[in-house]
Amino acid sequence: MQINPIGTIHSPFRAKEECPVQPLYASGIGRVEVFEQYAAGLKDIETFTHVYLLYQFDRAGVVELVRPTFLDDEPHGVFASRHPCRPNGIGMSIVKLISRDNNMLEVEGIDVLDQTPLIDIKPYILRFDRIEDASDGWLANKEWRPKPEGRE
Amino acid sequence: MQINPIGTIHSPFRAKEECPVQPLYASGIGRVEVFEQYAAGLKDIETFTHVYLLYQFDRAGVVELVRPTFLDDEPHGVFASRHPCRPNGIGMSIVKLISRDNNMLEVEGIDVLDQTPLIDIKPYILRFDRIEDASDGWLANKEWRPKPEGRE
Repeated sequence: MQINPIGTIHSPFRAKEECPVQPLYASGIGRVEVFEQYAAGLKDIETFTHVYLLYQFDRAGVVELVRPTFLDDEPHGVFASRHPCRPNGIGMSIVKLISRDNNMLEVEGIDVLDQTPLIDIKPYILRFDRIEDASDGWLANKEWRPKPEGRE
Repeated sequence: MQINPIGTIHSPFRAKEECPVQPLYASGIGRVEVFEQYAAGLKDIETFTHVYLLYQFDRAGVVELVRPTFLDDEPHGVFASRHPCRPNGIGMSIVKLISRDNNMLEVEGIDVLDQTPLIDIKPYILRFDRIEDASDGWLANKEWRPKPEGRE
């Protein structure tokens, strides 16, 4: 299956070290540029407060199926984490939609590198996506911490 | 960017007409088979109650950027809906993780066709993914209804 970018994510983060680990902890304002030929697909997106961005982890390292993440030093399976070094390097972030100007979205809580290739946008729909009885899994009770030095 | 399936989703739904529109309305039990060579990546997944499945809409029709969905007869942009007929036909569903047996996950709330190619699994992490102040966008106050006859 061939994936072709539908746009580009513009963010304040030029290097991995500057990049927050999850959008919840990111105050960065970003711009999501949808290429003109796909802009018609944005109709009604401004009725949503939040959207999912799917994008390509285009600067991830080699795939490691089991590895520590940014949160602790224990190895976890990549499918039990959001780490970029995964098969089919597709990232997903929920961001707050601030405004739309034609094919350009202004969003808050961006946590990806500048110039990241955009693959898809899906609306965050409260009644489908807010799961009240979900868990934090192995992340429960993990203290937040800065990214370990030198860990990608 | 080339995407290769990492597994196969097994569901009770053999045809589009049988398939629920969203997992919330699906009571179907499904099995998510992760190919053996990727099974190590599942380590610790059983600590989560819910996971995102990313998969290929391998039986979607042609891409239509603006079209009605299953919910009403108004045209909406594909990026403001979850409709399968989208550029880079990647689907996303949140399912409840019931159990894991080696490379096989039993899940509840499956809403995809049997034999759908699996692309990725990501944990649903309560503190990142339950957005309290999100909206339902244009879906707000839409009554649920059966799929319109003949609409894909």
